[in-house]
Amino acid sequence: MRRLSTADPGFGATFDALLEEARDTTTRVDAPVAAIIADVRARGDAALIELTERFDRVRLTPETLRVTSAEIDAAVAAVPAPLAEALEVAAGRIEAFHAAQLPSDLRMTDAAGLTLGMRWTPLDAVGLYVPGGKAAYPSSVLMNAIPARAAGVGRIAMCVPTPDGMLAPLVLAAARRAGVDEIYRIGGAQAVAALAWGTATIRPVDRIVGPGNAYVAEAKRQVFGRVGIDSIAGPSEVVVLADGRQNPRHVALDLLAQAEHDEAAQSILITDDAAFADAVAVAVEIALQALPRAAIAGASWRRNGAIVLVRDWDEAAGLVDRLAPEHLQIMTAEPEALFGRIRHAGAAFLGAWCPEAVGDYVAGPNHVLPTGRTSRFASGLSVYDFLKRTTWVAADAAALGRVGPAAVALAEAEGLQAHARSIAIRLDSGQPA
Amino acid sequence: MRRLSTADPGFGATFDALLEEARDTTTRVDAPVAAIIADVRARGDAALIELTERFDRVRLTPETLRVTSAEIDAAVAAVPAPLAEALEVAAGRIEAFHAAQLPSDLRMTDAAGLTLGMRWTPLDAVGLYVPGGKAAYPSSVLMNAIPARAAGVGRIAMCVPTPDGMLAPLVLAAARRAGVDEIYRIGGAQAVAALAWGTATIRPVDRIVGPGNAYVAEAKRQVFGRVGIDSIAGPSEVVVLADGRQNPRHVALDLLAQAEHDEAAQSILITDDAAFADAVAVAVEIALQALPRAAIAGASWRRNGAIVLVRDWDEAAGLVDRLAPEHLQIMTAEPEALFGRIRHAGAAFLGAWCPEAVGDYVAGPNHVLPTGRTSRFASGLSVYDFLKRTTWVAADAAALGRVGPAAVALAEAEGLQAHARSIAIRLDSGQPA
Repeated sequence: MRRLSTADPGFGATFDALLEEARDTTTRVDAPVAAIIADVRARGDAALIELTERFDRVRLTPETLRVTSAEIDAAVAAVPAPLAEALEVAAGRIEAFHAAQLPSDLRMTDAAGLTLGMRWTPLDAVGLYVPGGKAAYPSSVLMNAIPARAAGVGRIAMCVPTPDGMLAPLVLAAARRAGVDEIYRIGGAQAVAALAWGTATIRPVDRIVGPGNAYVAEAKRQVFGRVGIDSIAGPSEVVVLADGRQNPRHVALDLLAQAEHDEAAQSILITDDAAFADAVAVAVEIALQALPRAAIAGASWRRNGAIVLVRDWDEAAGLVDRLAPEHLQIMTAEPEALFGRIRHAGAAFLGAWCPEAVGDYVAGPNHVLPTGRTSRFASGLSVYDFLKRTTWVAADAAALGRVGPAAVALAEAEGLQAHARSIAIRLDSGQPA
Repeated sequence: MRRLSTADPGFGATFDALLEEARDTTTRVDAPVAAIIADVRARGDAALIELTERFDRVRLTPETLRVTSAEIDAAVAAVPAPLAEALEVAAGRIEAFHAAQLPSDLRMTDAAGLTLGMRWTPLDAVGLYVPGGKAAYPSSVLMNAIPARAAGVGRIAMCVPTPDGMLAPLVLAAARRAGVDEIYRIGGAQAVAALAWGTATIRPVDRIVGPGNAYVAEAKRQVFGRVGIDSIAGPSEVVVLADGRQNPRHVALDLLAQAEHDEAAQSILITDDAAFADAVAVAVEIALQALPRAAIAGASWRRNGAIVLVRDWDEAAGLVDRLAPEHLQIMTAEPEALFGRIRHAGAAFLGAWCPEAVGDYVAGPNHVLPTGRTSRFASGLSVYDFLKRTTWVAADAAALGRVGPAAVALAEAEGLQAHARSIAIRLDSGQPA
């Protein structure tokens, strides 16, 4: 963990170095992934079955690739009632927020008499990748599938690897609640290839979303263009802005909640109170001792963590915009006003009672967010990822008469005579036929 | 040009083959582009100057990299009045349509007492690549820069190569009209590298848009992540749906307007009238003879063109959805109703008086559109490309009390104890400090 102060003479250079540090150390797996994709394209289900036996130690047949409805029923029944209720709270809230995001079509007739429009339509089919094995993340199923369903996507096909046959009931229950019934027990690059290209058993989709390991990320990169993909997520990060009136133990846990994801995660506290900074540093060490994932969280905090002392909140806002963090927590007297002075963040959590972890599960907005300073230009997952726009124009002879000559002039200036003539012939003819 | 009929026994296989044909034959330039980017990162302006002398035969200095305001003034003055007026018609209409696209922020307080929001903010800085030399496309400057300006982007930096010193006045005039004053006379991968990483003279941007050759496209791929990019455009394409009442000479020019872009472009006519199909085929050959770009348009039409005879318009709608074309022209009795039955297209042009070329220049919607069947999941350029969303949550103690326990239960089920405790400690404390 680094301690920085904007009052230090070397602050500029130290902060620049912090910004440029590459935390993501993904290994390159281009070649093996290309081979797997080619194999799935060539041999379809047979390749999926062979690769799944090799990587997950599970023997499948074309008939058992897909999880049956009865298996999902059994998983739903196996979820303890309090957990089922928590899942319902989360799903309902995520649904409500994403439904509120749905945009409206545009239609306008202008002075020249042209009618212009923009129409939103859902994607036909979406593939959802869900990591399997030890770490089961039902929240990720909800956050990826519910926006697709809210957008009106007709078909959501989910792939989840089941190493040694393991498949968390809560993941299946989350899928059922989110409206996903088409679930395949495959993972890795082979699952991405199957979703992009299709096999005898799995029909291809139009876009693939969801987190995965380096093989999954590389496979998504390689099938991009054939299908759409979501952005490739880097390590998670949080910036907490907190004044001296906050509880250091709360802030310490907020920083560690991010750090426990991954050793490459990054937690940064920005405060205007040096004594509070000290208190949080101590509270982090104490909280770490009681954490099951102390090894990971501790390594992340020591390597990537930082506490930055600022002179005022305007200075803090400037630093946040340069960090453009995935998560931003604001615990000051006027959090919404301070948020209004910050331009770049994936998601913000305002006030002492709004820890970022609430947003990971139940607040409603999506927890799939831009990492690695990309919130300067990118946004979190939303219904927009599952919709596309078609613009349209309608004109009659009079309208074409008003705007056509300008188009002819520009087309001729660009040397595109067929463009110009396709308009000019209509202007001359006075009649379409 | 292929003639197909849905009544043919082999139609399914032939149409599948048409869909899978790769028209894009971009050469791989990964290695030279990586070297150029590394050079620009290492040596900045010096690399730009050296590469520009090598590729464009122009000697620049750090002082002459940027086009001066006086040079832009002179270019604007050099544009003939009718062309200046045409540019103004186009710019005004493109501005009006993109301003109408601007989305609204979201803010809602729900039953649990949480306030949830989604805030749109513009990108800080955008880079616009404009191809130079022989082919000058002022329309492309308008279509890329105006949506950025409409979104509220503060800074637009444009790069345009000037081979042998050539720089079209109309391109500079379009840039001025669109609000772009920061223009650099550099091109290729070196321009993309400069926009992404910055040099002493050129400050870095957050997103790079605009068309370019294979080097530019590969450079955009390689800087993606550091900055955002637009989608890499493939060859252009149009599908025209026309009934027997249309003028075959008009339709022939619409097909050729697409074909004249590039030998890899694709023009497809779908009609329910065999005699009309014959008439269009003849009209294309006649119109070709009078076209300056007949060699390109003819090659495109012979290699990639097609006329498909259908039994009815429902059948046509199904074929269009499988083609998911960049441009769709509908010339039938009820074009808007037929458009309503089609799900996938980048942009649609409705009626006998609405040739696609109108949309390339003056209609108002963007002409940068998804190609290569990607309109299944992708959309045309818009203000959305220059905005990003930040979601936010605000909660007080009572609101956290209502939703917090569900989040704690899910975090514990996922094995993320710091997440759970960051919420639980607040639920227990009853006070933030």
